Amino acid sequence: MEEILRIALAQINVTVGDLKGNVEKILDFTMQAQRLKADIITFPELAICGYPPEDLLLKKYFVTDNIKALHSLVERISDIVVIVGFVDRDKEGNLYNAAGLIHKGKLKGIAHKIELPNYGVFDEKRYFQPGNRPFVFTLGKAVLGVNICEDIWIKGGVAKYQGDQGARLFINISASPYHSGKVILREKMLKERVKETNAYICYNNLVGGQDELVFDGMSMILDAKGKKIVTAKQFEEDLVFADIPITGKNKSKARVGCKYYIKLDNFKATEKPDLPKRYCKKLDRISEIYNALVLGTRDYVRKNGFKKAVIGLSGGIDSCLTAVIARDAIGKENVIGISMPSRYSSPETQSDVKVLADNLGIRLITVPIDSIFSMYLLVLEKEFLGLARDVTEENLQARIRGNILMAFSNKFGWLVLTTGNKSETSVGYCTLYGDMAGGFAVIKDVLKVLVYRLARFRNEKEDRRLIPDSVFKREPSAELKMNQKDRDILPPYPVLDAILKEYVEKDVGFEQIVSSTKFNSEVVKDVIQKVDKNEYKRRQAPPGVKITPKAFGKDRRLPIVNKYKEY
Amino acid sequence: MEEILRIALAQINVTVGDLKGNVEKILDFTMQAQRLKADIITFPELAICGYPPEDLLLKKYFVTDNIKALHSLVERISDIVVIVGFVDRDKEGNLYNAAGLIHKGKLKGIAHKIELPNYGVFDEKRYFQPGNRPFVFTLGKAVLGVNICEDIWIKGGVAKYQGDQGARLFINISASPYHSGKVILREKMLKERVKETNAYICYNNLVGGQDELVFDGMSMILDAKGKKIVTAKQFEEDLVFADIPITGKNKSKARVGCKYYIKLDNFKATEKPDLPKRYCKKLDRISEIYNALVLGTRDYVRKNGFKKAVIGLSGGIDSCLTAVIARDAIGKENVIGISMPSRYSSPETQSDVKVLADNLGIRLITVPIDSIFSMYLLVLEKEFLGLARDVTEENLQARIRGNILMAFSNKFGWLVLTTGNKSETSVGYCTLYGDMAGGFAVIKDVLKVLVYRLARFRNEKEDRRLIPDSVFKREPSAELKMNQKDRDILPPYPVLDAILKEYVEKDVGFEQIVSSTKFNSEVVKDVIQKVDKNEYKRRQAPPGVKITPKAFGKDRRLPIVNKYKEY
Repeated sequence: MEEILRIALAQINVTVGDLKGNVEKILDFTMQAQRLKADIITFPELAICGYPPEDLLLKKYFVTDNIKALHSLVERISDIVVIVGFVDRDKEGNLYNAAGLIHKGKLKGIAHKIELPNYGVFDEKRYFQPGNRPFVFTLGKAVLGVNICEDIWIKGGVAKYQGDQGARLFINISASPYHSGKVILREKMLKERVKETNAYICYNNLVGGQDELVFDGMSMILDAKGKKIVTAKQFEEDLVFADIPITGKNKSKARVGCKYYIKLDNFKATEKPDLPKRYCKKLDRISEIYNALVLGTRDYVRKNGFKKAVIGLSGGIDSCLTAVIARDAIGKENVIGISMPSRYSSPETQSDVKVLADNLGIRLITVPIDSIFSMYLLVLEKEFLGLARDVTEENLQARIRGNILMAFSNKFGWLVLTTGNKSETSVGYCTLYGDMAGGFAVIKDVLKVLVYRLARFRNEKEDRRLIPDSVFKREPSAELKMNQKDRDILPPYPVLDAILKEYVEKDVGFEQIVSSTKFNSEVVKDVIQKVDKNEYKRRQAPPGVKITPKAFGKDRRLPIVNKYKEY
Repeated sequence: MEEILRIALAQINVTVGDLKGNVEKILDFTMQAQRLKADIITFPELAICGYPPEDLLLKKYFVTDNIKALHSLVERISDIVVIVGFVDRDKEGNLYNAAGLIHKGKLKGIAHKIELPNYGVFDEKRYFQPGNRPFVFTLGKAVLGVNICEDIWIKGGVAKYQGDQGARLFINISASPYHSGKVILREKMLKERVKETNAYICYNNLVGGQDELVFDGMSMILDAKGKKIVTAKQFEEDLVFADIPITGKNKSKARVGCKYYIKLDNFKATEKPDLPKRYCKKLDRISEIYNALVLGTRDYVRKNGFKKAVIGLSGGIDSCLTAVIARDAIGKENVIGISMPSRYSSPETQSDVKVLADNLGIRLITVPIDSIFSMYLLVLEKEFLGLARDVTEENLQARIRGNILMAFSNKFGWLVLTTGNKSETSVGYCTLYGDMAGGFAVIKDVLKVLVYRLARFRNEKEDRRLIPDSVFKREPSAELKMNQKDRDILPPYPVLDAILKEYVEKDVGFEQIVSSTKFNSEVVKDVIQKVDKNEYKRRQAPPGVKITPKAFGKDRRLPIVNKYKEY
């Protein structure tokens, strides 16, 4: 009989800091894998404490508790081999992003992450020392290399070294955050690594939302020819298995005498039950983004202990899409829409709000703001005497709405979801403490043109319209003064979004944008000025789901005091 | 004649991104130094682009423009040797935190920072590659080592190596942010480095505010015995000189053949005019903190292009202190106080507001909020029917005040300064979008007990009272409901502040705090829970001046979704 290793990848949704809950979940998945006679089960990077724990890592007792949690797990593991992420600490107090190798109630070995990402949303050099010893172990005749996230991304790096040491199977535990296009990058990289090493790769990613990040899962196993033999679901927990042959080549290359080897040599291939058939459809781009928004929203609401969420509904496309995402994330019974019409609200938008709420089956509360607005104007009349109406009066309205939403939040314990998109967040076409007020900014990283596409996509998935057609047809307006239109002060959204993609997401400058897009240079300059000037607003914005290669938040850290101008 | 080098340290206040303005300032100080026949003038770390430029560094054109700015400076330098910080880039596009050595219209050499801080408020590994070659140059018979900020902090590091290469004088260009106690740390470290190397050290620090950081200056020159021979002012621009002997020992140890040497050998010691006498009084702890708050506030207001600032005055100690700081920072004619009394405001606080405004000579505007508050209650009556009054109604009032302050800001272009202290910011005893609404949080990093001390200190400095005595005597209250006192839900401030110092500033945990302070464990637990729970509020807070070893902001990066509990 050809010997095989049955490996299980547990793509779990853990919560940062929930050491006990995470360990329970790890045990639960381990038992599931044992029922199908898996020899090895793997878990994501830092699965014990959640990823990223950020400055919790600077609290010594937190790291101690995470190690205790690991040992509480170790004690309860019998025959199966478990590989799980945790924070390791050496005698000098240095921390390592680590993978524990557990077998028969013992911690048999520890792999340290060698390549520490310190760019984009990552700050790993703030906390961790790099490991200096690629980790290889044997299980019977099989030689396996364990590496952690970034380790496998580097050509000629950790995996190559482990391959040279005889490893024919890599186990990579990851916490790789989602952005649109990331899946393709990951698969390409994994195939390159297979090509470099001629080894199997088990890529075990995390799934779930954590503040502004969504981990999309989609763990996979590639054979030594680069063929995907199994793929886990995207945006859901999953447990996937594969049987990996360990005869022939595997044995011949093993250098079992190497000092870095850990031997688990009591392995015997046993008869295995058949594995369940599975089929995982790849999501298209729009569907993928939509699912990321839903998961990110659901996990932010739930992991923060909220049951219900409240949204200010204006009848515009942004609040409509946000409401639909919220419904898909936490259920229609948990979403409350609040309509807050003023003298500038049109009958059309108000009617659309009602239709939307009906279509979604969510509760709608109407609180007109005009009497409050009038009272503010009256109280401020003396001080503002003789001065023309301007953005002040527009912001007053937006902030009255923010105050009302927060009053409902305070009174009933509902989380406020804000509705601003990336286009307006970029150029500051939004009111701080007004429409920006809330706990989570669902579509903060979604440019306006994409907002429409996502809304259309979601409508098409349903038998009936969710978002009324009129919302798509109406020209965007903040409805904060008479006959106001977004285009009064912004370029058309396709132009604006194209500039923002270059300037915000790719750090391309003024001159290059003008020369590559051929847009009017005054338009480009105006957009860049607006983006720069509004850094202070974004600094006070709630977090939201990252779906692009560069989102506002940890991903993009610009000073507020900043006199730089390229032009 | 004994040969001497006359060295000038230019402690300048540059602005991030203001390449042209910074270069002009560098030239201006260079001319001043030349008038006194200085042989060398030094400028702070990254003086060309300002510190920290953060993600501006990811924009290629920004780095290019900073290099162009450096060269525009180089062209205009004649006999004097200039050492100035800038961002260097190699052919592969790697960036370095660098010091340029300029002489006679040429860039003679470039030192790269070797030790890159990536902790606390620092993210240098996000941007820079470390240098690999400690930089030494000769000027006539003198052998000098140039190093950058962190480089000199490391025992047995860059300075030691440069000393071994013969350097008898170190030039360290720094951007070392202030916190209370930092001055002592710096001096201690510099003395240790002198002891290790027996060399002179010229320590040139930056001065000025940048977002949440204040650089306090206090540049200094230590002789080879560790004696301070000159000190620059704290919290002000300054230009200080010293004459450093270069005969004897200096010459004998020089290994001029070393390949890392840059020779500037046309140096001739000349007759020098006498240096002006100077005397720099060391500030005491409270005075130092107060000055940091003033400078941080002034630079945030001015560098962001504001002329005036507006403050909501409640008659409590926090808003009183904030107003006094603002007056000292930008002048009484530029500070506007707004009093926004409600039905819960006491005659005492309202009278204190008037006395304060009179004492400070600032304009006071009164905008009662009760009619607006009543209107909100009326509009929300139906939805809140039968429900008890709670924090909702308190927050409504705070947010009405936030909205009014922002209306004045929008209408007149005044920056709103918020008044929350670190104690309430820690435990969330403040209203998001209410009293937290504003551009800059002046005393955000000042614990309540220290607020009182600073207020008393400032009163004592003046011939007459600025803050009325009654403000000190009255028990703290938010005045958002009848007979409300802070102590209704918070422990006494000395207890609260002691716990916060341990938990927030030192990352000490529950068990250790209880055992070291002997405070009631329920009190400690309650404080910790409140701190953890309010991370979401702080995430949306404006920046404020860092004065402690750990401030909220870049210094402390905790996840919002976080289920960790030690107890």
